[in-house]
Formats: sequence, structure tokens, C-alpha cells
Amino acid sequence: MENKLQGLCVIAITPFAENGSLDEESLRSLVDFYIGRGVHGLTILGIMGEAHKILESERQQVLDIVMKQNAGRVPVVVGCTANSTNVAIHLAQKAEQGGAAAVMVAPPQNVKNEALLLQHFTTIAESISIPIVLQDEPVTTGVILTPDFIAHLANSIPAIQYVKLEEAPTPVKVTKILEKTDQLEIFGGLGGGSFYEELARGASGIMTGFAFPEILVKVYDLFTSGQQEEARAYFYKHLPLIRFEFQLGIGGVAIRKETFKLRGAIQSSHVRAPAAPLDTKTMDEFKELVHYLGVTL
Amino acid sequence: MENKLQGLCVIAITPFAENGSLDEESLRSLVDFYIGRGVHGLTILGIMGEAHKILESERQQVLDIVMKQNAGRVPVVVGCTANSTNVAIHLAQKAEQGGAAAVMVAPPQNVKNEALLLQHFTTIAESISIPIVLQDEPVTTGVILTPDFIAHLANSIPAIQYVKLEEAPTPVKVTKILEKTDQLEIFGGLGGGSFYEELARGASGIMTGFAFPEILVKVYDLFTSGQQEEARAYFYKHLPLIRFEFQLGIGGVAIRKETFKLRGAIQSSHVRAPAAPLDTKTMDEFKELVHYLGVTL
Amino acid sequence: MENKLQGLCVIAITPFAENGSLDEESLRSLVDFYIGRGVHGLTILGIMGEAHKILESERQQVLDIVMKQNAGRVPVVVGCTANSTNVAIHLAQKAEQGGAAAVMVAPPQNVKNEALLLQHFTTIAESISIPIVLQDEPVTTGVILTPDFIAHLANSIPAIQYVKLEEAPTPVKVTKILEKTDQLEIFGGLGGGSFYEELARGASGIMTGFAFPEILVKVYDLFTSGQQEEARAYFYKHLPLIRFEFQLGIGGVAIRKETFKLRGAIQSSHVRAPAAPLDTKTMDEFKELVHYLGVTL
Amino acid sequence: MENKLQGLCVIAITPFAENGSLDEESLRSLVDFYIGRGVHGLTILGIMGEAHKILESERQQVLDIVMKQNAGRVPVVVGCTANSTNVAIHLAQKAEQGGAAAVMVAPPQNVKNEALLLQHFTTIAESISIPIVLQDEPVTTGVILTPDFIAHLANSIPAIQYVKLEEAPTPVKVTKILEKTDQLEIFGGLGGGSFYEELARGASGIMTGFAFPEILVKVYDLFTSGQQEEARAYFYKHLPLIRFEFQLGIGGVAIRKETFKLRGAIQSSHVRAPAAPLDTKTMDEFKELVHYLGVTL
Repeated sequence: MENKLQGLCVIAITPFAENGSLDEESLRSLVDFYIGRGVHGLTILGIMGEAHKILESERQQVLDIVMKQNAGRVPVVVGCTANSTNVAIHLAQKAEQGGAAAVMVAPPQNVKNEALLLQHFTTIAESISIPIVLQDEPVTTGVILTPDFIAHLANSIPAIQYVKLEEAPTPVKVTKILEKTDQLEIFGGLGGGSFYEELARGASGIMTGFAFPEILVKVYDLFTSGQQEEARAYFYKHLPLIRFEFQLGIGGVAIRKETFKLRGAIQSSHVRAPAAPLDTKTMDEFKELVHYLGVTL
Repeated sequence: MENKLQGLCVIAITPFAENGSLDEESLRSLVDFYIGRGVHGLTILGIMGEAHKILESERQQVLDIVMKQNAGRVPVVVGCTANSTNVAIHLAQKAEQGGAAAVMVAPPQNVKNEALLLQHFTTIAESISIPIVLQDEPVTTGVILTPDFIAHLANSIPAIQYVKLEEAPTPVKVTKILEKTDQLEIFGGLGGGSFYEELARGASGIMTGFAFPEILVKVYDLFTSGQQEEARAYFYKHLPLIRFEFQLGIGGVAIRKETFKLRGAIQSSHVRAPAAPLDTKTMDEFKELVHYLGVTL
Repeated sequence: MENKLQGLCVIAITPFAENGSLDEESLRSLVDFYIGRGVHGLTILGIMGEAHKILESERQQVLDIVMKQNAGRVPVVVGCTANSTNVAIHLAQKAEQGGAAAVMVAPPQNVKNEALLLQHFTTIAESISIPIVLQDEPVTTGVILTPDFIAHLANSIPAIQYVKLEEAPTPVKVTKILEKTDQLEIFGGLGGGSFYEELARGASGIMTGFAFPEILVKVYDLFTSGQQEEARAYFYKHLPLIRFEFQLGIGGVAIRKETFKLRGAIQSSHVRAPAAPLDTKTMDEFKELVHYLGVTL
Repeated sequence: MENKLQGLCVIAITPFAENGSLDEESLRSLVDFYIGRGVHGLTILGIMGEAHKILESERQQVLDIVMKQNAGRVPVVVGCTANSTNVAIHLAQKAEQGGAAAVMVAPPQNVKNEALLLQHFTTIAESISIPIVLQDEPVTTGVILTPDFIAHLANSIPAIQYVKLEEAPTPVKVTKILEKTDQLEIFGGLGGGSFYEELARGASGIMTGFAFPEILVKVYDLFTSGQQEEARAYFYKHLPLIRFEFQLGIGGVAIRKETFKLRGAIQSSHVRAPAAPLDTKTMDEFKELVHYLGVTL
């Protein structure tokens, strides 16, 4: 199946102009940039894409522009998390109509009741005909998805073909899920900080927003072509940079946007308010580290 | 100023049909019901109004229908909380254009940095020309607004003319805020469980979704017409009912919708999923309690 | 069995002198005060007893003094919650040696893994020969105990004969637990704000720290002697006072200690720091309310 | 002053026998092991030392054994965090009597009121004559200490001479604090994952429990002897291992204890329950990674 997700399905940023409006031109160039760096898929309208900070009409614009610019080159996953089943269905149907390969859905905020979650995902699945990426997102949703419950969801709902992990330690969770179900392809996360170990444990790829996607692409390509030791060495070599971005947490959006701007992929590094400003020293450290590792900006 | 907020600015539910779609007819009858019970204002698109569970297009529908049906009879406050300043401004401007008397805005989710919050509210205030009701909402936002910071916001941003409290104990917070600023009119909350004490401490009214608004209206009217002892006795008499609704927490939407259905104000008590079902026993207890207190459904 | 828990097993405060040291004399007079007001049991070293703010040696003092002063008049439950199984066992064994009728144990802080919780309670149960009161305490522990899991614990561990609820709405939880197991006697909580409804749903009593225990005792005695309507009217009459105390949350310790001091049960209302000071207005309101309701201090 | 803290003040584990009792012999050999690896100080009875899982009598044993075995070779910091000022003072005085160079104190659980925190630390400082290490510990305490407030505490309380950071990103926080006060020496944390950057920003050292302390010691020694580039290369080389341990979060105690057992420093890797078991694959990965990096066990 050509639309099968694997490898790096990069979590895309959403470029804004300095005045905060959607920067359509940059969004187009960004799509080309990502694909030019070899990503295996695009994941749009996730948290790193500031999906919680944009209007529905802007969502639709992002979706349309990305799909048109991508022109079928890579599968596109669309974040459709919402606080109600109605809204999630609406977003998921729009995504499918737009040509999404899959939708990514996290639990609604603070809904910890497993029966309600099963119902939520079941109803969404019945409303679309593309697969669902179950998004494990404990910090922003307040909901912990245990390996048992993830397996139960996947075994109950055929549309849930993928899960994207975000609870540390991700490698251990990969193993625990694979022990309980064979219905899921697993994607790592947490900034790529354990990508090699996730792959070694059986992950099919990763969804993360690291601003040097070509590095994770190369790790994946080496790993899956039988050059595991080369994959590992290459991964560890770049770990200082992966770690640097990830330690910033949600502040990481700012540094990633600065990086994409430096790399010429977008025009402005504007992050929608409220957002803590990036301190100058951090950006200097970052550039110095990129130089130190010999990474091409 | 005729649009000045005071008394019960009831937090309105949003009626849905059994299939989950917006029930426009019920929304119209509900507006008449509230006004018929004497509310001093309407607060729409708050948490009790399931604002986090509806689409932007549905928000606009709710706004338009309420405004048209209200026809200027009472001031209407519109909930405009959002995770980004851009989106909050968009919602606030739509509210103003629609005829809102004020917008109600809580801090964005988990934004605890006071400098960022000051900037957020300042930018919103500069984008509209109607007052802002600062919404203290610690449980759902994860943000605690101290009396000092509430006063600082009000002293810095003239548009912030009101604050609606939701952190227990509300009467103590009323006093602490009044000690620090004279720029604010204070509204109580927490289901009305301390309404008498809030008024006695200097509150100008309350914003809450209690399904028997006429009871709170009478407490307010008695209190402000010099019959404080009568207000108190009447309030305490109905406290078992106020407490009953409030103990249900967010599950309270279900019982309130059942009540408005029983009272003939709306057609269906449908709450958007995911939502825990109301157990039969609770509804029986509730009806029995209403009967016990001699309250007219 | 004479040691069977039922009725009001009041959650006792721990009296300190103005200098913060344990006030042994007041502890003795407090025990007599509680028993003189008719409580059916004493629950010591709970959160309201500031158990998290005292030394182990002070715990032992409290235990010894209470037991000696009680002299077998009522069953005594001892709070033995701890972050490790080892420490909980140590505390529980000391409680049993001291003559406790039961120990009360909440989950360790933030331990949400049910297998680990089952193991924790199993090991404690094997180390003692008195019953365990399972303490549902979501706010301070960060752990939600579902009715399913509470029933599973009780069905797996015979020593767990009681559960004390603290998650709203308690009456609904009473029913849900009774539907799943017949191994548990259930105690209500949350300040007594739903005591009548808890009893009507099948609770065996309540554990709470309300500073007028004789009121809850009378509700219970009326209810269990077939005078349910009288119980209800009496309960509703005092609801303004029950609510007043409870709205203060953890600040409630201060007002309760002030009350016990006013009632002559203890010498000082000192609460161990850090603790927010009680504002004067709150205490005035409180005294005025006590007077208004005709309650004897 | 010879007792001045700097460099790696390693956060020590507390060794237990298989049956869960304190393993005194292993504690002695562990102290020698740490000092033999060149640590500049010992930090005992912290979270990694399972301080929240041991009895007060065991605390005293740990303190006495460590002090005797250390015999003045390195300064010893003693964790004295408690939920009440009384208990914290008691622990701090015991630590001072035992010969501690400093006490480490985090805010009491969920006390977010800055006036109460200032009072808490002031009172503790007045009760002892050794310095305080202010422990920034947002995850386990629920309290965020802003750079402004940390500086205010240090400027108000001379005894607060150190702060140990645990909120990401630590390097940025180092800079923000140094911009606001010159009264503090800053220690990094978070497993050592940003140790080089923390030092480059002006930190005086680190407090963390990484099980290969000699690696962090060498980073520090190289850095402070003018060989910053060598420090950096050496740090980055070992980052895969530092990251591996740290990703395990609180589960990291288990792997660290296994490591110290493998290294011959302690007899048993027992962690006090409740604690999630370490999966075999994780330990295999870990050993393989140690081998891969050429680190001597």
C-alpha cells in the first residue's frame, strides 16, 4: 500500500508572517523543503504546528496548501484532536476530503474514562475511511494511555493502525505495546532523542519536529537497509543537537522556526502569542553547536 | 450606563438535538426562558455552554441567534477564551460586531507567566471597544490568578472592568481583590454556593449556570433592595438544590440540560460526547429534591 | 463485632500549642470532646490531622495519647498512608500494636499503576491483622480510584473492609461501588456536604472533620432509627454551616481549629506552617452564621 | 572556605538489602565508591535517594553512616524537604548536628504562595547555621520557582547560597538567575543532559545521580582547568549514556541501582515498592551501550 506510513513523518511547523497571519508562500516552500530533505511523510496541524492557536478557517487553508504543494509526493497525516467527538469528526472528514493519508487524534483534554475514550475513537473511525494515528500525548492532554489500553483500542477499532508515542521512556513502551497487539505500527516521538532505540525495539518510524529532518531520515534509511551500526553512530553523533532542541520543550517551536528561517525554508520565525521569547544566548549556543557538529544549516 | 453588568448574568447552556447538532429552536426558547425568569444578563459560549466542544461556525450561529432573540433586552457576555491571542481577538471582534456587551476571557491553557498574560490581555483589549470580563478559571486552565495579579491586570488595562471568580473560597477572594483595586466589579461563581456571602463581601453579581435562575435573581433582588435577611433566608432554603447541582462538577451540564428540558425550555438534554452519562438515581434524587423544596419545575 | 466501623468516625485535628509543639493536654480534652458529642469513632492522623506535617515520634505520641484517653470507648482508625510499602507497613503495625480498630491508607503519591497499587495494599494487608480503610483521596495523591478498581481491591484483599470516599459526587460513587462488590462498607466524605444522600445510597457512615460533629451524629442516628425525613430536614437546616467550612478547602483546618478553641475543646488554634492565615472577616462570618442557625458553640 | 560546594555533588542512592531493609555495609562501600570516582561532594536523602520512602530513624542511620564513612573527605549536603516548617527544621538541625555542609530544601508540596514560601525558608534559615541549597523541583512538588522569586529568596535570606535546578531548560534558567542576583551559586540537574551548557552559562557544578559520576567529574575538571573544548567533546561522547539513564525518569533509580551493583559498589539493586520493575530489554540495551561507548563498568 503506497500510503502506508513509515520512516520520518515530520511534524510540520505552521509558518506565520511577522504580523501573525498565515504565511502561505512560506508554507509552500516549507513543504518543498521537507520533501527535499527526504521525509517519508508530513504530519500537519499537530501541537508543534500550533494547531491549538489557529482558526478553523486557517486549518483548512493549511490543509489545502499543503496538499496542493505536496501533490501526492508523500503521505500527509492531519492532526484532528478535539474536545468533542462532533468536532473531531468534522475535522477528520475535512482531512479525508482534502486527501489526508491518515488523521492523528489524541484523547480529549482530561478524559480519563476508558469507556468514553473507546466510544470517542469508535465514532470517529466510523465517520471516515482512512486510518487513525492514535496520539499518546500525556503532557498536553492530561491523559495517560497504558500499553494495555492502547492495544485494546487497536484490537477493537481496525482503523487505528498506528500509534505515535510521547510518554517517556518511548523504547520501553514500544516493546510493551508490541507484546500485546500486532495490529499497530508504532511511531516514536519525544524529539527523536531515542530514535535509534525505538527502531531497535520495533518502531516503524517517528513523528517529531526536529528541524534537521535529513538527519533522522538518514538514521532511518541506514537502519532499514541493514546498516544498523552506521545508523547508530550517525544518530549518536547528532544527539547533542537533538537533545538541544528537545530540552526547550514547547519553547522548541521558537528555535525550530528560527532554524527553518536560517535554512531558508520560511520567511519569518514568528510564533503566535502567548509564547516565551527565545533568549539570544540560546540561539547563539544553537548556531555554535550546529557549526561544531558540522551540520549544514 | 445601561449595559453595565450586574446581578445574575446566567451562564447559558447550548442546546443540541438528539443527533448532536445545534438546536436553534431550543436556543431561541431558552433565551426567552432565561429572560422570563428575570436574569440580568446572559453569558454565552462559556464552559457550561460547551464552547470547547463546538465549531467556530456553530459559535457564530449561537451568537447570532441569541442576539436576535434577546433583541437588546439584557446585556450579553460572550466567552472568547482561546489558546492564542490571535484567535481570542478574532472571537472577541466577532462578539463585538454581533452586539456583545462584553467578552469573557480566561488565561490560555497553562500560561502561568504573568508578563505573557499581561501582554495577552493588553493586545485583546486594544482590538475591541467593549469591556472584558476576566475569567478566573483555575481548574480548566491550570492557571491560578492571584488577587495581586488580578488587581494589576485591572489597573493596567482599563477594559478589564469585571472579574468572574471560580477559585474557592470565592467570598475571601472578593475581599482580597477589593482591597487592592477599585477598578473592578466582581462576579461570583462556583455554582452559586456562596452567593449570599459573595454579595455581602461586595460582589456585584454572579455568573453561574444554576438551572433555577429565578432563585438567584430573587436572592440578588432582595439583597440589593435592602432586604438582606430575606435574601439570606431564601438563599439558605434553596442551598440543598444549589449544592446538589454543583457537586456534579462538569457532570452538572447533563443535569442542567435535563432540568431545562423538564422545565420546557429546550427539546433535548443531549450533551456532546465524550460525556459521562447521568445515572438514573441522580435524576430521581434531583426531582425528589425539587419537589421536597417546593420549587416549581 | 463491636469494633465494626459505622456512623461518624470523625477525622480528628491534631492540637498544637502556640509555639507549634504538640499540645498533649488539648489532645486529651479533644478526645473527650469528640466522644462527648457522640461520635461513633475517631480517625486520627489523617490530612485534616496534619499528619503530613508531623514527625514520626509525634505520630506515636498522638496515637498513644488518643488510645489512652479513649480507653476503648470508640473504635479508633489510624491514617497510615506513606510513599513506600515499607513505611506504610511500619506505621500500620505501630497502629495495630497501639490498639487501632483499623488503618486508613491512601495510594502513594502519583502511583497510578493498578498492578503496583494492588501489590502495595496486598503487602500491607499481610503485615497486619486489623482491617484497612481504603482512602480515596484524588486531590492530594493525584490518583483516581475508579469504582471498578476499588471493587477489585476489595474482592482481592479481604482486609479491605471499608472505603472512605473523597471524589465528587460521592453519592454516585457509593452506588457504583455497591453495584460491583458486597465486600465493602462505604464512608462518605467531602466535608459532609452530601451526607444525607450518601446514607440514602447505602453508605455506612462518614469520615470527615466538620467541627460540629454532633450535627452529623444526629443526622446519622435519625436516619438509622427510621426517621429519615427528620434526618433530612435536620441535615438541610445545617447545610449552610457544613458548606461554609468545606468551601475553605485545606484552609478549613484553620477555621476548624478556631472553632474547637471557641468550643473549649483545645487551647490554641495554631496550624503548622506553611498555612495561609484565616482572614478576620471569614471568622466573623462564621460566628455570625453559627449564631444565625442557632447552633451552640 | 573548604566546605564551599562546587563540581559534582552527586545525588546518592540509598542501598537496600533484598528484603528492603537499609544495607549499611553497601552504604559504606558506596560512599567510598563515589569518593573514589572523584566526586566533589555527596548529596544524600534526595528523591533519587528514596528519601520519601524511608523512616526518620532510617534517615538518621543513613546520615550517621555516610558522615562516619566520609570522614570529612568531601562536603555532604542533606535533603531536608518536608511539608511543614517544623519538620524541615527538625531534619535540618539533625543534619547540622551530624556534620552536614549544607541542607537542600525544596518547597513543600503544592505551596505556591510566595509569601508563605519566603516565611518557610526564612524560619528554617534562622534555625540552623549552615547554608541552604534551594531545590527547584517542579515535577514532584507542583511548585514552579521563577527566576525572579529565586533571586528574591536569595537576596532576602543570606543562608540560601545555592540553588539546584530541575526545570528545563536548565541553561536558560542559569542565565536568568545570574542576571537577577549575585548571591547564588547555581547547580544544574536533569540527569546531566545539559551539563556542558550549564557550565558555559555560569553554573558552579551539578547535582545529579548519574551512575558514572567519574564522567561528570572529568567534564567539570576539564572545563574548570581551561580545557573547555576537551570538556565538551568528552561530554558529547557520553551523552548517549547520560540520555539513556535520564529518559527513564523516576524509573531511573532502578537502572542506577543495577549499575552500582554491576560496578560492585552495592550488594543489591532493590528499590522500595511501589516501583515499576525494570524490563530486561532495558538493562540489556544499557549494558550494550556502556560497552559500545567503551565505558568501564
